[in-house]
Amino acid sequence: MEKKYTIGIDFGTLSGRAVLVDVANGRVMTSAVRAYTHGVMDTVMPDGTALPDTWALQHPADYLEVLDETLPQLLRSSGVRPEQIIGIGIDFTSSTVMPVKRSGTPLCFLDAYRHDPHAYAKLWKHHGAQRYAAKMEEICAERGEKLLDLYGGRAFSEWSLPKLWEVLEEAPHIYDAMDDWMEAGDWIVWQLCGVRTQSCCSAGFKSLYRKENGFPSEEFFAALDERLRHVVRDKLSAPVLPVCSRAGGLTEEAASRYGLVPGTAVTVSIIDAHAGIPAAGITGPGQVLAIIGTSGCYLTMDERMNSIPGIIGAAEDGSLPGYWGYEAGQSCVGEHFSWFIENCVPEAYAQEARKQQISIHEYLSDLAQKQAPGEHGLIALDWWNGNRSILMDSGLSGMIVGMTLHTKPEDIYRALIEATAYGAKIVLDNYKAHDLKIESLYVSGGICQKNPMFTQIYADVLNLPIHIVSAKEGSALGSAIIAAAAAGAEQGGYSTVTEAIHAMSAPIERVIYPCQAHVPVYQRLFGIYTALHDHFGKYRNELMYALKSIRSAE
Amino acid sequence: MEKKYTIGIDFGTLSGRAVLVDVANGRVMTSAVRAYTHGVMDTVMPDGTALPDTWALQHPADYLEVLDETLPQLLRSSGVRPEQIIGIGIDFTSSTVMPVKRSGTPLCFLDAYRHDPHAYAKLWKHHGAQRYAAKMEEICAERGEKLLDLYGGRAFSEWSLPKLWEVLEEAPHIYDAMDDWMEAGDWIVWQLCGVRTQSCCSAGFKSLYRKENGFPSEEFFAALDERLRHVVRDKLSAPVLPVCSRAGGLTEEAASRYGLVPGTAVTVSIIDAHAGIPAAGITGPGQVLAIIGTSGCYLTMDERMNSIPGIIGAAEDGSLPGYWGYEAGQSCVGEHFSWFIENCVPEAYAQEARKQQISIHEYLSDLAQKQAPGEHGLIALDWWNGNRSILMDSGLSGMIVGMTLHTKPEDIYRALIEATAYGAKIVLDNYKAHDLKIESLYVSGGICQKNPMFTQIYADVLNLPIHIVSAKEGSALGSAIIAAAAAGAEQGGYSTVTEAIHAMSAPIERVIYPCQAHVPVYQRLFGIYTALHDHFGKYRNELMYALKSIRSAE
Repeated sequence: MEKKYTIGIDFGTLSGRAVLVDVANGRVMTSAVRAYTHGVMDTVMPDGTALPDTWALQHPADYLEVLDETLPQLLRSSGVRPEQIIGIGIDFTSSTVMPVKRSGTPLCFLDAYRHDPHAYAKLWKHHGAQRYAAKMEEICAERGEKLLDLYGGRAFSEWSLPKLWEVLEEAPHIYDAMDDWMEAGDWIVWQLCGVRTQSCCSAGFKSLYRKENGFPSEEFFAALDERLRHVVRDKLSAPVLPVCSRAGGLTEEAASRYGLVPGTAVTVSIIDAHAGIPAAGITGPGQVLAIIGTSGCYLTMDERMNSIPGIIGAAEDGSLPGYWGYEAGQSCVGEHFSWFIENCVPEAYAQEARKQQISIHEYLSDLAQKQAPGEHGLIALDWWNGNRSILMDSGLSGMIVGMTLHTKPEDIYRALIEATAYGAKIVLDNYKAHDLKIESLYVSGGICQKNPMFTQIYADVLNLPIHIVSAKEGSALGSAIIAAAAAGAEQGGYSTVTEAIHAMSAPIERVIYPCQAHVPVYQRLFGIYTALHDHFGKYRNELMYALKSIRSAE
Repeated sequence: MEKKYTIGIDFGTLSGRAVLVDVANGRVMTSAVRAYTHGVMDTVMPDGTALPDTWALQHPADYLEVLDETLPQLLRSSGVRPEQIIGIGIDFTSSTVMPVKRSGTPLCFLDAYRHDPHAYAKLWKHHGAQRYAAKMEEICAERGEKLLDLYGGRAFSEWSLPKLWEVLEEAPHIYDAMDDWMEAGDWIVWQLCGVRTQSCCSAGFKSLYRKENGFPSEEFFAALDERLRHVVRDKLSAPVLPVCSRAGGLTEEAASRYGLVPGTAVTVSIIDAHAGIPAAGITGPGQVLAIIGTSGCYLTMDERMNSIPGIIGAAEDGSLPGYWGYEAGQSCVGEHFSWFIENCVPEAYAQEARKQQISIHEYLSDLAQKQAPGEHGLIALDWWNGNRSILMDSGLSGMIVGMTLHTKPEDIYRALIEATAYGAKIVLDNYKAHDLKIESLYVSGGICQKNPMFTQIYADVLNLPIHIVSAKEGSALGSAIIAAAAAGAEQGGYSTVTEAIHAMSAPIERVIYPCQAHVPVYQRLFGIYTALHDHFGKYRNELMYALKSIRSAE
């Protein structure tokens, strides 16, 4: 039988990346990237209108350009025939949301609205809706709503609903003019297959949707603002579907535009981070996908719903179908080290690194990895950017304790790495304390691949094996795997997503096991970290608040 | 009447410095310095014998060389006639102690002992007697002795008695061979005037001597070691005299050796730091002499005896006659900034300082002084070298809290300066809490003269005026002032030390007053410092201990 392929398209913050993947073994045959023409609009609009500080918009035309450019390129460069392509999977940043007409046309495409910032896509990191998130939290508390229980009790400005409320308040004509308030991922799916859907993933993790109850009640929305009473009926009416399912078949128009075959399966969209789950070979509970970059994110699953305090969110059918997906995160990981490199590394170290022709990170790691755990005598709290897990307190700040006149830069560097590992342990222990199985960690790319000391410290602190996944294009590969499941076995794909994952996930490059001699030392150190964490984060957090309030008073 | 002069000789750690001072106005006419030929012997003896890590010896021949070289030089370079010189004052580091024969000959001068390390002078920072200090503390506690009440409840290895006990235990033949165990300052006085004395200052601050009761009882010494029962009678029998008094007149032999007049008044010796008191113009309670260098020292006086916890020591007639002198200190001040400069200043800052042709301290200060108090949002505990006041806990270590991704090097630099100021406030507040008057601070030289931002921060935090004393050779000048009082009015000196101080003390260069807008902000910040101080230093000090114990286990 002729080989079959799927396409995965990963819409990131700055570009879209498409991969063509062999359905038999998950091999990435070719890939294509298109940077967004307008990038992130966080200072001015295309017409030169200035934007407030907290804003971050995108132009949905850029998303279409990704399709226009990458899809034909995949075919050209691979020589694969359109008939061999059985599915297209889409993952997207979230909550990146925009107002759309019933026709599918984004409002910003229309002359009447092209000068209106609220007519564009609000990128996930648009924080203009902060006060609507805060108001939502307040009203939930007043009403004794249990809605936020799955979200660590917090409402986030990055969510869809605060952004929608922002439109209603600040541009009611845009609110009135839109027929749909759509996740950009769902909108792309619509453009491909002509079917309006909403993904369980973004709806669940970013819009308070629960498979059992749907979106929040009309009473809740009316309590926010009477004008929002019918918002679900009026603006969020597309059917909500589980991830990994088929949204529809490629339309005639899309097929001819991109050189593909009409009817080709198009998946329901998934949030980009979650698309990493199938790529890593994760098929269910116990395995944690760790995404460790500037910040940290820990995705896992369970058979049951669990109200876990201090996490970011939970959604049924949100990560893999049939499971509750859970997300928790650290607000600052790699950023600690960037801060340290920029602000705390002495000249002599920079000179020596240059002499050895290695990066300053490598130089510091070389020095730091000679140490035994605890040898530097330091403990840090990894709160340079507040604490998102499990304390959910952006008013917290960083600390280091244990310095002496003998403390060296590499000591502090190592202590900062360890602090982020302790922070990760807090996240995972919190999962465990709420009956989630935590058996192993999967990471791909980034710091873990580049810095073996970093990964070994994490393995030792967490006392878990860490699987290094070799996927360079993890999310795109994940979307292609999902597409093979959505296409189904009859089309040459797979009848379940588990089968697709087993066949197509990226190879494990290596597994880092905890060093058993280090584990008890790190357990003691983690005890000290926990004592500081609880003291400054729970019992005496007013101390850090006071520092901030004195600071802002000055 | 012909002009009169006195000589002050300051025996420091590395050299001796003599000044010739105009008795009428305290003007330093000329000065002479002689570095010790053997310096500090902390690795090997003169004969090449290796010394343990904790050791620090000196060769008393070096002290005599100071006299031989500087005294004639003062005469030569000033043109002053010997008859015009009415007194010689001596200050010395303490407790720098050595075994001496009845003749005045140090044991190390004798062939029989010149290869024995215990025959030399043990410098103040010789720490070989640490375990004898610890044992002394233990035995005091067991016996319910109140002896240590004046010393913050602690016995220090830098004291004279633990060093003597060390000799007894480790070189009993030296113990047996000595007729006197002498402070080097008292020994120099003896060499000049032929009179064996002990100073109330070193005896009181470093040897548990109390004017009222004398040295500790025979029972106490016997409890340490039966062989010490008669130690006071046998080895510490010289009369103990108040500071600022006359020990005797220059001997014929010394006079001819140094080109001076026999009978010239020689003072009882004083500890070098305390000689700064008359130099600064301090005449009694309320005024604090602050000596701020690598570490910090705060000397003050009161009419009454006071058992103050957390101080270093107290002695009647120890600082100025008629008063109880008090000493408390910080174990680390300037060393924080040296540590910071060496370990935490990024290359770009070093480059910019070079470009501007200023020191890195100046560059950081320029940046930091633009900030309002509290603007950086940080608080540090100044415990990089443990805490000597008021917690007396060398197991403590440093900490900083409040870091964010926006924290800059100059923020941390300023926070460290502020931390040492908060530490100083703890010391002064502790004095106040025990009914000592604290009205103004006197500093000379060092950081305060070089760094106006540093001094302003101290004034603001302490809410006290800070007098900058212009004395470059403070201790030597102080000794010369004392000598004018010891000489007496009939000789052209003064009948009281207060008169001598009023006439001869160094001019006040300027007074730095607290900025009243800063005082309340620093009060709030000090409240936070105090909370951390108490948490980590009192209630949860086991946390810092645990870090150190894990460290040393690795």
